[in-house]
Amino acid sequence: MTAAIELFELGGLGGRRYSLFSWRTRLALAHKGLAFESRPVKVSDKAAIAFSGQKRVPILRHGETVVVDSWRIAEYLEDAFPERATLFAGAGGRALARFVNFWADRTLVPAVGPTIASAIPACVEPDDGAHIRAGFEKGFGKTLEDMWAAREPGLKRLHAVIEPLRALLKTQPFIGGDAPLYADYIVGSPFQWARVVCAEPVLSPDDPVAAWFERVLDLHGRFARAEPARGSTP
Amino acid sequence: MTAAIELFELGGLGGRRYSLFSWRTRLALAHKGLAFESRPVKVSDKAAIAFSGQKRVPILRHGETVVVDSWRIAEYLEDAFPERATLFAGAGGRALARFVNFWADRTLVPAVGPTIASAIPACVEPDDGAHIRAGFEKGFGKTLEDMWAAREPGLKRLHAVIEPLRALLKTQPFIGGDAPLYADYIVGSPFQWARVVCAEPVLSPDDPVAAWFERVLDLHGRFARAEPARGSTP
Repeated sequence: MTAAIELFELGGLGGRRYSLFSWRTRLALAHKGLAFESRPVKVSDKAAIAFSGQKRVPILRHGETVVVDSWRIAEYLEDAFPERATLFAGAGGRALARFVNFWADRTLVPAVGPTIASAIPACVEPDDGAHIRAGFEKGFGKTLEDMWAAREPGLKRLHAVIEPLRALLKTQPFIGGDAPLYADYIVGSPFQWARVVCAEPVLSPDDPVAAWFERVLDLHGRFARAEPARGSTP
Repeated sequence: MTAAIELFELGGLGGRRYSLFSWRTRLALAHKGLAFESRPVKVSDKAAIAFSGQKRVPILRHGETVVVDSWRIAEYLEDAFPERATLFAGAGGRALARFVNFWADRTLVPAVGPTIASAIPACVEPDDGAHIRAGFEKGFGKTLEDMWAAREPGLKRLHAVIEPLRALLKTQPFIGGDAPLYADYIVGSPFQWARVVCAEPVLSPDDPVAAWFERVLDLHGRFARAEPARGSTP
């Protein structure tokens, strides 16, 4: 019998799971068919995760093992459960998934963020909303209201940024090829973030990327779709 | 005994191999330890490649088999020579290499191109130079001279575009991980293009991407370094 798996992750109002990084881990766990207990924590509650020796979520606890950072968690799950469905499909897939991870974090997430940021405070408790507002406004050098006012050019920029993804998804159904791999969850995570927190869509319905994201939502018994889309409109 | 391999590829003045796409194939062949005959063709000489039923290079001819397009050639080489060093390291590596291919073609190549384009005509025969000038000027909506005048902002843009690559190469020596894979040749190809045609560097010497490219040049008996850097300054 395997030890219990706990996932410490951001939790919002009404149990919303709105952290894009924890969605990477959630989908990786679903991919491997691993049950887990979600442990929601507030942005402003560092005491709840003091056991990890650092201040960031997601954190995976598996028996005595504590793993921090969504990328490290994915590698841990692949190595700890090699007999279950693979997240990388080989050494090349693991190395290149790390490139996809950096591409998502340095290019895609900064393009999605400002188009949905002003919808986040209504999805979380007020003190967390203030934390999140301060973080975005410092990071982007603009108020949330100014980000929302610049949403149209922001969406145009996002649609340009995802052009390589769009081209890929015209040739294969998943980033992982015929079936999904962890790279699909890396890239799907900011779109799930957007879906969960913001009532206004970020993708055009006729975009091949939108069709792919619908396929991701349907995976593993509609695992990601089960999280309600109850975002706000600022 | 295996059939002979021929690579039809663009050839410039003094035997220069300046096509970025043929460098992907050249490095893939070197990776697999496969000898080949280079068949240089001019941009303006479509008769030389009429046998392929289309108008683009690189073209690989292996006995009776003709394969067009650098991506298809890489897949062909992997499948035809499975006992030799792998280009993808598994199914995941192949699927994600295709993402890297689209990222390079839609994001990286358009960022490198205008910073070196005006140096190309001096490296090729005059009629090919006129073809290349017309192609770039149509594609970018600017004269080659205007592209060169805008080189500094162009290099800034390029250095921003490669940020995910830079972050990756701080964590592993090659895009393929501890050792190179085809993804390294995909991404290395525009830098080899730049090295071959333009005397002015596109990367800062202290950039981790520059250090990685030096490692790529040293691979397979310094295969890519053996192509002289004899580009022009416009």
